[in-house]
Amino acid sequence: MKYLHTMVRVTDLDASIAFYRDALGLELMTVREVPAGRFTLAFLAAPGDPTAQVELTYNWDPEAYTGGRNFGHLAYAVDDIYAACQRLTDHGVTVLRPPRDGRMAFVRSPDNVSIELLQAGGALPPAEPWASMPNTGNW
Amino acid sequence: MKYLHTMVRVTDLDASIAFYRDALGLELMTVREVPAGRFTLAFLAAPGDPTAQVELTYNWDPEAYTGGRNFGHLAYAVDDIYAACQRLTDHGVTVLRPPRDGRMAFVRSPDNVSIELLQAGGALPPAEPWASMPNTGNW
Repeated sequence: MKYLHTMVRVTDLDASIAFYRDALGLELMTVREVPAGRFTLAFLAAPGDPTAQVELTYNWDPEAYTGGRNFGHLAYAVDDIYAACQRLTDHGVTVLRPPRDGRMAFVRSPDNVSIELLQAGGALPPAEPWASMPNTGNW
Repeated sequence: MKYLHTMVRVTDLDASIAFYRDALGLELMTVREVPAGRFTLAFLAAPGDPTAQVELTYNWDPEAYTGGRNFGHLAYAVDDIYAACQRLTDHGVTVLRPPRDGRMAFVRSPDNVSIELLQAGGALPPAEPWASMPNTGNW
């Protein structure tokens, strides 16, 4: 048995790929357009971990994708949580829960999917600007 | 970078472990009670794929966990989709989208988290009772 992916629906495929690939740092593995079903699927995965994927489903017919509380978040380990949060910030993503502890951060995708980042190997020493950055909203 | 887990919130930890472990076939890796935070975390993973986990968050203070459309599903490859669906059925889980095609099935967790099962290596030959089983509800 093997974990394959977590699927999330997205309202704007380009904006979502910009988030998951460019800002979060995943690699885009496959994009598959299915005109007969009027949807496009994009699969992304962490560099070096290609078989555990996130599947973005973009339905060509618009729908509002509200969030629910039964789903919590997707979590990834990163090599340098400060570098990861800086890249997200550089791409206009608000770090909702900054890594004040050098260990954990949360952001949200354009469709409000919560993403947790955890420092691989345990906490880094506290560092500014993160150490004194307040929380924003919820995650 | 490494995928760690997808977190879902559960209203009944025992019922959820019965679903994810006994019916779906995941292994229970860790249970961690955090009395100070009034929550319990349980981590499960597919046998043979221990580092890609699902995290169940059980908050001791009850809350209704509604679903949302931005989250789609969790997907797992299985060695025998008919055996997997039979085990789910034996545990009282309705196979909402039966594997009529020998390839794909959907069920839902007790908290309505949608789970996709895909036959590893491609479709099996159609087989009863699955081949003529209708869909139930949505997934």
